[in-house]
Amino acid sequence: MKPNKPCKIEIMAVGSEMLSPYFQDSNSLYITKRLNELGLDVSFKTIVGDNWEDLLICIRQSLSRADILFAIGGLGPTQDDITREAFASVLKKKLLYHDEILEKIRERFKQRRLAMPVINKKQAYIIEGSEILDNACGTAPGLWLEHNKKTIVLLPGPPNELMPMFETHVWPRLQNFHRRYSEKKIIKITGLTESKIESILSDIYPNDSSIKLTTLARPGQIEIHILSYSDSSQAHAHKKAIFIEKRILDRLKDNVFSISNEELEQVVGKLLMTNKETLAVAESCTGGYLGHRLTNVPGSSNYFIQGVIAYSNEAKIKLLGVSPQIIDKYGAVSAQVAEAMAKGIRRTANTNYGLSITGIAGPTGRTPKKPVGLVYTALSWANGSTVKENRFLGDRKSIKFQSSQETLDMLRRFLLREKENTSNIRNE
Amino acid sequence: MKPNKPCKIEIMAVGSEMLSPYFQDSNSLYITKRLNELGLDVSFKTIVGDNWEDLLICIRQSLSRADILFAIGGLGPTQDDITREAFASVLKKKLLYHDEILEKIRERFKQRRLAMPVINKKQAYIIEGSEILDNACGTAPGLWLEHNKKTIVLLPGPPNELMPMFETHVWPRLQNFHRRYSEKKIIKITGLTESKIESILSDIYPNDSSIKLTTLARPGQIEIHILSYSDSSQAHAHKKAIFIEKRILDRLKDNVFSISNEELEQVVGKLLMTNKETLAVAESCTGGYLGHRLTNVPGSSNYFIQGVIAYSNEAKIKLLGVSPQIIDKYGAVSAQVAEAMAKGIRRTANTNYGLSITGIAGPTGRTPKKPVGLVYTALSWANGSTVKENRFLGDRKSIKFQSSQETLDMLRRFLLREKENTSNIRNE
Repeated sequence: MKPNKPCKIEIMAVGSEMLSPYFQDSNSLYITKRLNELGLDVSFKTIVGDNWEDLLICIRQSLSRADILFAIGGLGPTQDDITREAFASVLKKKLLYHDEILEKIRERFKQRRLAMPVINKKQAYIIEGSEILDNACGTAPGLWLEHNKKTIVLLPGPPNELMPMFETHVWPRLQNFHRRYSEKKIIKITGLTESKIESILSDIYPNDSSIKLTTLARPGQIEIHILSYSDSSQAHAHKKAIFIEKRILDRLKDNVFSISNEELEQVVGKLLMTNKETLAVAESCTGGYLGHRLTNVPGSSNYFIQGVIAYSNEAKIKLLGVSPQIIDKYGAVSAQVAEAMAKGIRRTANTNYGLSITGIAGPTGRTPKKPVGLVYTALSWANGSTVKENRFLGDRKSIKFQSSQETLDMLRRFLLREKENTSNIRNE
Repeated sequence: MKPNKPCKIEIMAVGSEMLSPYFQDSNSLYITKRLNELGLDVSFKTIVGDNWEDLLICIRQSLSRADILFAIGGLGPTQDDITREAFASVLKKKLLYHDEILEKIRERFKQRRLAMPVINKKQAYIIEGSEILDNACGTAPGLWLEHNKKTIVLLPGPPNELMPMFETHVWPRLQNFHRRYSEKKIIKITGLTESKIESILSDIYPNDSSIKLTTLARPGQIEIHILSYSDSSQAHAHKKAIFIEKRILDRLKDNVFSISNEELEQVVGKLLMTNKETLAVAESCTGGYLGHRLTNVPGSSNYFIQGVIAYSNEAKIKLLGVSPQIIDKYGAVSAQVAEAMAKGIRRTANTNYGLSITGIAGPTGRTPKKPVGLVYTALSWANGSTVKENRFLGDRKSIKFQSSQETLDMLRRFLLREKENTSNIRNE
């Protein structure tokens, strides 16, 4: 461990497709996440195409500003793959042929009962003085190279090749650069806006560069990512993270639905599983999205029984037993209809809970009294029901998300209160 | 127009959040798309944080390799926003105060009935010799600067500010760099694998650098993007794009579901609207995802009547009238049950068409005879029904997508055949 040694890190992605409007470099996000865990920050990212002159310029300039340079992509067998050659050229080093690499590549093809194409021979050449990083999932070996006090790491572009190579061969070598210990926490919140959370937490944001707080916000869900660093020990980094986490949890209370990176539908599913209880849903404006989210969780068939997408009034009447008089009197988008839908699906499906959503997702369908984003959500249980009127902002998909989030959260809060009451009774 | 003037373009995104594992620069994709339409390619992309020294190095190096440099972000009022100052420093130019900019910013705050914070005064300083690019949607003005034969464009980071500024002020100025005319076409395909499409099209891929073909593939949907260039005229670029598009369409026939960038659910919706016909769906393993996709289309209530998420056998029996004997005999994941579900939902909802899905989305739930990815999809209409057995690969979400795609495509192909038959009868 070399504490506090200043260390500039750059990630360079090589490939013309990433200079098109269609593809983004995502490998750098993964590498950054792992580097941060070692207390290392990334200072620069570069994207350059499969162009010899452009690549040479980038390599020269990046080596002048960075101490560790990760170069990703361009190690394949085709004419477009020139990363190895470009680095050799800039570093004025030879490319040396390694028979054992070619044997491994040949073996790979053999296992798939294919003959090795001649072009793959190119991948057996490595830059002199570099260490070979074995590729368990593809033909392109990676390279690790120390040159003029700089560290250069060449990695293949496909994530399914890069990730195992990084974990097996790069991660252990990076321990030498370990600057600080780190600990990561994720707090997921619903039911509060971003500005509300900021006002609640403003005075406890740490004025300490060894704790980073990042807020990721979308309507209906806010995440606070805590990353704490310590020069002395893992336990110290952990303690710092736990300290700020606890302060945040004390303030935000049951608005926090997960501190273990779960989705809201997973949290609700676990609560239902624990209670051995069941759920059915009745959806109008979300059109199946609530059911989709619930069934994204493997094993959800243990508690999710059925759903009805009652897009038409007729379906609300026929499948959910909503009275036509109520629809006539209050309209399909109303608290009364939401409540009748939740009760109806619970009765029909014979479940412990019924959730329902009816609203105007837009962009069409609004009336003078009922704007886009007006959504009623309801929860029905054995001895009662509750309805909420919501005014969501955003486009159709965002309103669908917020609506599903709100119903799941109604159920989550209900199940938490039930749990509390039960344990209170037990404690009495 | 300066034809064939060599021109290297770089896009630099400034902001420490883009060096974290959480945020990606997406503005460059939008700018790249617009530049490509002018026949201009992007050669380099750089991402750098809000760090004075790092930013100075990047600006110097990027100006040494690029002819046009877009720098995005860091124009805000806070201490972190240093892009303007860094460019002034590298170019050895003064920052000049412009009272009329401050007046505009003050006016913006006034409209929102807020007092302008003092820190915003910083945004009224611009680099000497630069042109101001007015910001209609925020406080940070952009800058356009010509220096030593280089063009430098500073733009704000928030996409809702950047995009209108780019369209109104940057796009017209870029016409001077117009190198080639271009035409864009998107062909969307379902029902064929990527390798099947490659083998069908391999001999017609143009060996012509003025036509770019990009394939974007995911299981269940492939897109071919055609971008054609011409030095002489728009009509010529159009002709080239149409020529290759027609060849591809002739080969792929009705596997192409859209040439106007529509989603499959939109295409199906339009066909139903034209016919004034209606649809209902019965879902098991997709859990509402098919309904969700159908109702993502504004106006879908015109043809989508209802859905049933029959996750349990009981729901299949009670809500869809599937016979318990059939479930006992063939299992819930079977062609027989899929067909009964499609017929059942069509009957219950009294619609023209019924679609159904039953299968194993995984990762759990497989049996020795029924692997993960085995999905039966069915379509029911007035005089008949059809079932398909599918073996999808991928994770739970991918299998849900492929299942919904397959059912939508069954209906699309049926409606197309109906249309053909009707017009054949008319022609007789």
